[in-house]
Parts: sequence; structure tokens; C-alpha cells
Amino acid sequence: MSKQNENRNAAGGIGRRQFLGTAAMASLAGIAACSDKGAAVASASSEGKAAPATAHGGSAANIHLKPGELDTYYGLWSGGHTGDMRVLGLPSGRELLRIPCFVPDALVGWGITNESKKVMGTKPDGSLRYTVGDTHHTHASYKDGNYDGRYAWINDKINSRIARIRLDYFICDKITELPNVQGFHGIFPDKRDPVDPAINYTTRVFCGAEFAIPLPNTPTDDGTKYRSLFSCVDAETMAVRWQVLIDGNCDLVATSYDGKLAATNQYNTENGAHFEEMMSAERDACLFFNIARIEAAVKAGKFKTYGDSKVPVVDGTHAANPDPKTALTAYVSVPKNPHGVNASPDQKYFICAGKLSPTCTVIELSKVLDWFDGKMEKIDDAIVAEVELGLGPLHTAFDGRGNAYTTLFLDSQLVKWNVDAAIRFHGGDKNAKYVVDRLDVQYQPGHVNASQSETIAADGKYLAVGCKFSKDRFLPVGPLHAENEQLVDISGDKMVLLADHPVRGEPHDFVIFKRDLVKPKQVYAMDDFPLAVSPDKSGVTREGKKVTVRMTSQAPVFSLREFKLKKGDEVTLILTNLDKVEDLTHGFAIPKYNVNFIVNPQETASVTFIADKPGVFWCYCTHFCHALHLEMRTRMIVEA
Amino acid sequence: MSKQNENRNAAGGIGRRQFLGTAAMASLAGIAACSDKGAAVASASSEGKAAPATAHGGSAANIHLKPGELDTYYGLWSGGHTGDMRVLGLPSGRELLRIPCFVPDALVGWGITNESKKVMGTKPDGSLRYTVGDTHHTHASYKDGNYDGRYAWINDKINSRIARIRLDYFICDKITELPNVQGFHGIFPDKRDPVDPAINYTTRVFCGAEFAIPLPNTPTDDGTKYRSLFSCVDAETMAVRWQVLIDGNCDLVATSYDGKLAATNQYNTENGAHFEEMMSAERDACLFFNIARIEAAVKAGKFKTYGDSKVPVVDGTHAANPDPKTALTAYVSVPKNPHGVNASPDQKYFICAGKLSPTCTVIELSKVLDWFDGKMEKIDDAIVAEVELGLGPLHTAFDGRGNAYTTLFLDSQLVKWNVDAAIRFHGGDKNAKYVVDRLDVQYQPGHVNASQSETIAADGKYLAVGCKFSKDRFLPVGPLHAENEQLVDISGDKMVLLADHPVRGEPHDFVIFKRDLVKPKQVYAMDDFPLAVSPDKSGVTREGKKVTVRMTSQAPVFSLREFKLKKGDEVTLILTNLDKVEDLTHGFAIPKYNVNFIVNPQETASVTFIADKPGVFWCYCTHFCHALHLEMRTRMIVEA
Repeated sequence: MSKQNENRNAAGGIGRRQFLGTAAMASLAGIAACSDKGAAVASASSEGKAAPATAHGGSAANIHLKPGELDTYYGLWSGGHTGDMRVLGLPSGRELLRIPCFVPDALVGWGITNESKKVMGTKPDGSLRYTVGDTHHTHASYKDGNYDGRYAWINDKINSRIARIRLDYFICDKITELPNVQGFHGIFPDKRDPVDPAINYTTRVFCGAEFAIPLPNTPTDDGTKYRSLFSCVDAETMAVRWQVLIDGNCDLVATSYDGKLAATNQYNTENGAHFEEMMSAERDACLFFNIARIEAAVKAGKFKTYGDSKVPVVDGTHAANPDPKTALTAYVSVPKNPHGVNASPDQKYFICAGKLSPTCTVIELSKVLDWFDGKMEKIDDAIVAEVELGLGPLHTAFDGRGNAYTTLFLDSQLVKWNVDAAIRFHGGDKNAKYVVDRLDVQYQPGHVNASQSETIAADGKYLAVGCKFSKDRFLPVGPLHAENEQLVDISGDKMVLLADHPVRGEPHDFVIFKRDLVKPKQVYAMDDFPLAVSPDKSGVTREGKKVTVRMTSQAPVFSLREFKLKKGDEVTLILTNLDKVEDLTHGFAIPKYNVNFIVNPQETASVTFIADKPGVFWCYCTHFCHALHLEMRTRMIVEA
Repeated sequence: MSKQNENRNAAGGIGRRQFLGTAAMASLAGIAACSDKGAAVASASSEGKAAPATAHGGSAANIHLKPGELDTYYGLWSGGHTGDMRVLGLPSGRELLRIPCFVPDALVGWGITNESKKVMGTKPDGSLRYTVGDTHHTHASYKDGNYDGRYAWINDKINSRIARIRLDYFICDKITELPNVQGFHGIFPDKRDPVDPAINYTTRVFCGAEFAIPLPNTPTDDGTKYRSLFSCVDAETMAVRWQVLIDGNCDLVATSYDGKLAATNQYNTENGAHFEEMMSAERDACLFFNIARIEAAVKAGKFKTYGDSKVPVVDGTHAANPDPKTALTAYVSVPKNPHGVNASPDQKYFICAGKLSPTCTVIELSKVLDWFDGKMEKIDDAIVAEVELGLGPLHTAFDGRGNAYTTLFLDSQLVKWNVDAAIRFHGGDKNAKYVVDRLDVQYQPGHVNASQSETIAADGKYLAVGCKFSKDRFLPVGPLHAENEQLVDISGDKMVLLADHPVRGEPHDFVIFKRDLVKPKQVYAMDDFPLAVSPDKSGVTREGKKVTVRMTSQAPVFSLREFKLKKGDEVTLILTNLDKVEDLTHGFAIPKYNVNFIVNPQETASVTFIADKPGVFWCYCTHFCHALHLEMRTRMIVEA
């Protein structure tokens, strides 16, 4: 295979495949996404394809754990439209938990209990504000460039919400809705403070807004008046600290290890309302934010607010930032509708994948800082490589050994490439062979991540790739197929496909980290619950029509064997689980009253409802707890 | 190991472990369920334990499919409190699909679209009647004693609902709420008609009510006035055909292969309201229903109705059925709080597991029919074996080679035993060694099933066991642990544990069958949807404040690029997916309007909402469809 073919004529000018025409791309993409590869794609793609790896390469290959064997990595996975976070064990790929966030969950009573409704947010009438979600990206909190096991965050695109997960109890404890934002897409925590060296851990989470809207949102079809905001959320309080008004839109987000820079790729610098407008420009941008300067501007009162929101909004548009030495933002140009911006674990680069361009663009962060400092004239000189990889590059992961792994959506491939070699090639060394390996994946890969890839401790063992289509890889189950999460061994020179795992649509992003980085707690602390019912307080109290039922559970009994209400009562039922053994969870279901929730060991939860149906209602434990679990009941008698 | 120990002194009188005292059992069960086995359990249980199997035995052992390899079996699994049905591939254990039934699902828009709301049921104001569920049991339709791939059914215990799944599209198409029933637990389809030999397939589904209530449900705390009903649902119309008033309660359900008998085990013949009352009697019952006689009684008008329900209820109590030759029901006594009644694939026996008794009871169906025919005096003479197996027997599966596999909840064991040998032992042959093998499982197993076990084609290859506690088998994820579904090779003499699979609580029951028994369809037929939008009909029509938005989707565009509404409009949005390629599904999300749903290829779905928030709302495709998926949007402009 010639070096030219291997690198696909990437940096030597505009190649045949580098900038595809709008119409061709649109139709070609449609076909390739949904059927076997069309001839046009196959002929282009087969040139540089390495032979598929056939044998297990490195030490990471033993994914078939024996019964009882534990995984060595955790994975935190976006749950997609189920609005939750999935917790996986890797390398087995086993799903250990789903953590409800944005969408009610009938198993644990998320959206049923008063405690969870408070986190989720309610309307004035007490009903849930939203019951749908669309989670895309999840990332965890950092300390000294590695995960610290405190928090993870996940976004909801539909309603522009960000949820925080506590990684001790693996629960969602706070949700914030971003003001004046639609299509909240990318999300990334910072890794340290840009100014204070003592703050060597995450204190901010950055959020990108994909859809431009009127600010504030008033009805107009004049798209030139629409704008997007980039938001910063406080990692502890979860309040929105500040926002930045920008040109174009936000897609994915990345942050630098020194805390100084955040960036978002922009696929719609055109601010187009229709897809052909959005893809009309040959280059879009990777937009950098100078965090310290933005916070100084906020502190100096150089902001405005929109509508009812009190969040300070600074101006990051081109027009407002003519001088690099005071600019809050920097727009680095990258080719056509980029998708995915990822920080390399050597702390040096952000890499933008081209999507509609077959390239990845490598941006050197020290040069961006040079530009902000007035030491470099043209911001695009921060681009140290822009190399061709294949059709439809979307996301990039890293192995900590200088290699990047980029998904090619249209080629249904994973390409392993060496960043230093790409930089040398871009710099003129046409002998620099930057493509190291290619692996066909099944099919149309989107997100990719590798073990510890988003940290300075990237260990290059396992890589997971989220394929959007599984086609023929699993038994058919009707019109909607599972997607295919594939696990790849990247410990050797050649990538080796290890396993296919089906998953409901659509998981999007995920992170994978070593199991010793979190310290899960197994039993709640009763004192953490202000409403906790002590055994002597079990009973029913009444103030007019307001009734409080206090109850405890201890296998196989509830403390109240029956309780009586009157039709029309407003009832708050508080249940404390006195059992102290891990996983000795009880459920509480009230037939016909739409109540079902669980209390974990030493947990307290409450529900409020109107006793509007007279009769006898057998409330029962819904979570297996004891040989007499079926017999664990209490009678709710609602008198007419 | 002596034969006596091997069979544990089972049938030779009341052994030490046969009937445990109430208090001891209660405390012992509690401990054993939640910690390592207590001394009392361990000493009793270790006697008869076979050495754990260490090597793979038979041909069924290769469960680690290579990437791209297909499973050979489907599994239909209860989803537990997520109110859905899980579809698995076996032997890999991969979850291929979740089919929403009783609980809204934000991925597909179940409970959001008008079509799914109609299936789920709504209140007068149009909101969903219920949003929680508690699915326990799932079974599929039969023809000639094997699955025919038409339907599966699943129950909701909380709100006494039964859902039907179409096995061509893998969707829920009908839900029925049973009248005058609480704690609807067991469910089983019949296997042929009891009278008409031409009806060699399922036409009825039987449903057991666990909790006795006043009939109709009026408030009284006098438990002696509470009664349970056994219900028959029509498999095609899903209407309730008839109900039977009974003494005691219903738990699990089984049906005979000849269509003549259905049965439910009764753990609370005492009609107790508290657990110590429920376990006061030494023997409870397996209650048989003579289907032909019940239907003749209904036809003859020998029924009453309760409250608003029009469903005919015949009287199946002891008092109303003194003569076997006309009796509708037969109460066969079985020991103390039985749990699980299962039909053997040789079509001869129902087997009741003892739960609080360490026994299983084998009931010969031809003898039950003899009793109904006046040929056998005492109904308990239908008991052909009652043998000791271990502590806490719950459910039984079969291999088609004469062996039964019973879960022992307290012993955390699976016991393989030979039914014929058990009958010989019970008949006096003390040399009959009925226990064949024991396998420790992890931990506290509930339901068990084997490949094709519930059919005449039981093939004895794989067995799955649903363990209620996983304890140390997976990485910790906070207080609520996954449960543990274990896969066992039963193709050889010794059982071999193959794999642990974590699962969210609580799956309860499942069936496993050969993949060629279903014929899934991959693309919908557009004509099946009366609202289908043809491309020329795309647009907005208005009648006063009622607005209809008709739209089509075809990657990467919606037919309407924008549509305008007025604040206060009642909007019905109809979306037809014109794409014809399998799995080319589009989603449709409206930010802030709590709308998200999908349309599969050639499917039409609709939503109705009030346009109560003015502004610009970017509706977007939520299901990856194309390289320009992110750009696939339409603007909803709501004018003030």
C-alpha cells in the first residue's frame, strides 16, 4: 500500500473526497446510512483499508468473565431517550444500573415520590414539568486530570436541562434548566480553575446550545435574529453562572487540562434554518472560550440579561471581540459541519472531526493561548494538522500512546491514526504515515471512547464504539432494531473487535474508567432524610383534610397493618426502610392510585395524593425482600 | 451419600425440615435472604449438596457468540416495575428490545402519541390513567402444544391489567383492566379448546387475583367479606369472558395441554389479612378449574355480576360445588403457602412448589379429571408425589427428559429431580433416588425456566434462573444492586453454570423458545394507519382553534420546514415516515412541549397538544438517520 494511499492524499490540497458537493453528499449519506455500502463509497473506502484483525492482540482481550468475576472498569453511558444514565461493567458490557434523571422511572418511583419530583421540577399544580428526555453526553468530575469519583453530568437536549449524578449513591441529585437555550447538546466539566492553582478539580460544567432562537424567545420567523448561547453551570450549586452570546451554534464541547480554555465545534456558522443553508459554507469553526477573561468581564459588569433570566450574558460575537488581547472568544476555522471536539490526553490538542469533510483538524492549545496573548497573528495558525481520514469522521478517542481513534460514520470504520505523524505530514513530511490501522465496525459509528481516554491516565486498553445501526447483527425484533455497541481491544498495534452489544436508541456518549476511582456507598444514612420515621412515630395524624401516614418497613412487614382515610383527604405517606442490609430494598405500591416507589436500606421517601376512590386497597411490597415477601402488605381503607 | 440423605427423608413422614414453625421460618427467611447463609440453614442444606459442577457438560455450552453471530433462542422476559417486556437473545443473554406496555416510554413515545394512549387508557381529561406498572409473568400463545409466534401476554399486578404483545411487530396492541380484582398475579394462556378439537390453539388467557377485596370494592375492614376472582380473557378480543368466585386466593396459574383444566396455587386459603394468619394453615391448595363446565354454566345464565362490571361471575366456592360430577372447581390440598404451579411437558402433571414447605407436590391431571367424572372419591388422591427438595421451593422448569428443575429460595440452590422417581418414592419405593443434581446459584432464586420448557417441545438445553439478590457478583453501584439472571447448561447429567447477567428489578417470569418460531416484520404497512399522510397532503389545516399539522419524514428532512400556530390552538400533529428501509426510524421532539416520539419505517403516529407557549421551537429528529441527522429539523412558530 503506497504512503499516498495510506494517508489518502490528505494534506496536499483539496482531494477528490475532501469536500464533497452538497447534493452528492446528501444523497450518498442517506443511502450509505441505511443499506449496504453503495458503490461510490465502497470504491473510495476500500483503497486504504487494512486487513481486518483476526486474532486477539493484547492483554485486554479476555472479556468473557467467568460467573462471579468482576469487571475492571465502570462505564457511564447516556441512556438516550429513556432520559437516564446507564452504568456498565467493562469489559463484560453488562448493564449494572440505570439511574433515572429526566424521565420518570416506575421502578424506583422517580417522578412519583415528592423527593424525586423536587429534583425533576413540577408545574404549579404539582405535576411533572416534563416527562420526556433526550440525553446525549455524559462526563465525570476531575481532579488533577483524572476522574475523582464525585459527580457525573448528563444533558437533556429536548428541554435544555443538565442533571448531576452523585457517584457515591449513583443517584441524580440536581437538575438545572438552562435559560434562553434550545437544543442543549454538548457538555463538558472543566478540569481545574484557570486562575487559582489550588482549585485542581472540577468547579464548572460547560454547555453548548445547538439551536439559535430569538433572545428572549418571542415568535419571529426572521432567522437572522436568532442566536445561540454557551453556558457555564456551577458544579456544586448547579446554578447557571454565566452565558456567552456567540455567532453560529454550539455542538460538542471540550475543555483543556489547564482550565484556561473551553471549546465547542460549530456546524452551523451560517445560522441557517434549513439543512442546505447549514452546509453551504466550506468551513465552519471550533469556537474557543477564554474562561478567565469571561469571568473577569462578568465580574466587571460587562454583561446583559435576556427576558426573565438573571444569568449574566457576555458578548462573544466576532463584532464585539476585534482585539485578540481582550477577546473573550476565538473562532478557529475547521472544515464543513464538524462534529466532535476532543481533548488529547497529552493535554496539548483539541481535535475536530469533519463530518461532511473527510478530515480531522488538530488545534494546538498553546497556540490558541498565544493568539489570546497577542503573540500569534492569525488564529488559524493554531491548526497544526488537517488530515484526511475517511468519510464522515465524527468523534475521536485516545490511547495515551499518541494515537487517536476516529469514527467514520459513512465508511462504517474506526481509523487509528498517530497525531504526531499527522502533524509532521501536515507540516510537509509526505513520508509521515499517520494512518496506523483501520477496523470495519457494524454499522455507522457515532460516538467512540476508550478506557480513561478523557484523562491524563488514558491507558489504551478497551475502546467502545456506538454504532447507530445493527442491521443483521442480532435476531430481528420488529421494525426498530437495537443499536450496536462494539467493544474493541486497542492494546496492540492492530485493533481487534471483541464483542457486539445491543442497546436501545440512542446512547450517544459515554466514559470508561477504572473501578477503583469510585467508592460507592451501599446503605443510606438515615439522618440524611429530614422526614425519617422512627419506629415509635409510626401512625396516622390528621389536620382537617390533610393526613400524614408515617410508616416503616422491615422484612416482611410494614409497621402499619392497615390505615384508614376519608374520601377527599390529601394524604402524605412517608415510608422509612429500617432494614440495614445492603440491597434489602422494599417497594410500596398502592393499586389504582398510581403509586409505586422503593425505599433502599435506611432511606425515607414520601408521596402525596388525594384519596379520591373509596374502598379497600392492598398496598404491597414490590421488591423481593424475604420468603414472605408476597405476604408483605398493608390495607389502605378509604371510607366513602 | 446415602439414599436417605439424598432424598432428604422426604415422603416418610413429617421430617425436621418439612414444616417449619411460623416464628422460626419468619426470622430465618429474613436472615437468609440478606446475608450469608446462617448456620441453621447451612447445616441443613449442606447435607444433600452435590459437588459444584466445574466443567462444561453438553453441547449447549458455547454462549460467547463471536461478534456478528446470532442467538439461537428468543427470550421474552417480564420487565418488572418498568412495566414493559424485555426481548432477549439466548444463549448470549443480550437484551434486544424493551416493549413498553403499562408504563410510558420516552424513547418511542409510548404514552405520548394518541395511538399509544388509546392502548394504555386515559382519564376523561385525556391524561394517562396509570403511569406505573408491576409486570410479573409473561407467556406466549400456543398451537398444538408449542408456541405459534402470534402473541405473548404480560400482567400488571398493581392495577390488574393484562397486555397483549404482537410477536410480528413486537408491540403491545391491547391492554385490559380486570374488574373487581386486586393483585392480579399469575397468568397463563390455554393450549387448546376443552371441547372443540378443531381449536388446537390459544383462545383464552387465565388470570389469578391474589388479594381478596369486597365485591364490589366498598370500604370495610371486615376481611371475612373479601373474596378473590379467577378471570378468563379472550385471546383475540381481549375482553374478559367470565370470572369465578373462589375461596382463598390465586397466585400462579397453569393450564393443561388438553385445554380442559386450569389451576392456580393458593398461598392464602385462610383469607388472612396479616402474614401470620396467611401462614397459619399447614396445607393450602392448588385450585383446579373445569373450563368446559364453567363456560356451560355461563351459557346457562348461572352467574351474577358485581358493581358496574357486566362480566358474568360463576360461583366456584366449596359451598357451591358439593358434587364432583357437577363441580366447577376442585381444591387439591398442598403444603403451606405454595408458590409456583407448572405443567410438565409430558402433559401429565402440574407441580406445586411448597415455598414454606420444603416439598414439591406432583398432581396427576388424569386423576383430577377422574374426580370431576365421579371416578375417584378423594380429590387429594390426585397427588402422586410430595417429596422434599430443600428450603424454599418456588418454581419448576423441565427438560423434556423427565426431569424437573426447582428453585430453592432459601437454600440458594437449583435442584434437578426426576419426576417418575419421585412418584415411585412417594409410592413406597424408598430406593427411588429422585434428586439427580444440585447447583448453588447466586443468590435467592425465584423464577426459573428452560428452553421450550412450557411446551411439548421442551429441549433441555438452556435454563435461566432469576436470582433476587446478586450481592458480590457485580461491581457495586450504590444501595440498589442489580438482580442476577444466571444461565445454566442443562444438556448433561450435571448442571453447569454458564454466566451471570445483571438485571434491574424485578424481572420475575420469562419464556425461552427457538428463534424460528417467530417471524418478525421489519417495515410497517402504510395502509394499516388510517391517518397516514401522503406527500401531497403535507400542510397545516385549521378549523377555528383546532389545527391539524400533517407532515412526512424522509431522511434528512421533514416535509414542513416550518409551521405556524397561534397561542391557544389545539394542535394535532400527524407524522408519517416515508422511509421504507428497515430500522430507518425518525424521531420527533418539540422542546418545552413535552413531546417526543418515533415513527418506524412506513409508520404514522400523532400527538395532540395545546400551543400554550409562544415563541420559536425547533422540532428535531431524535433518532439517528443520516449524516445530516443533526440538521434534520422543522420550526414550530407559535404566535402570541
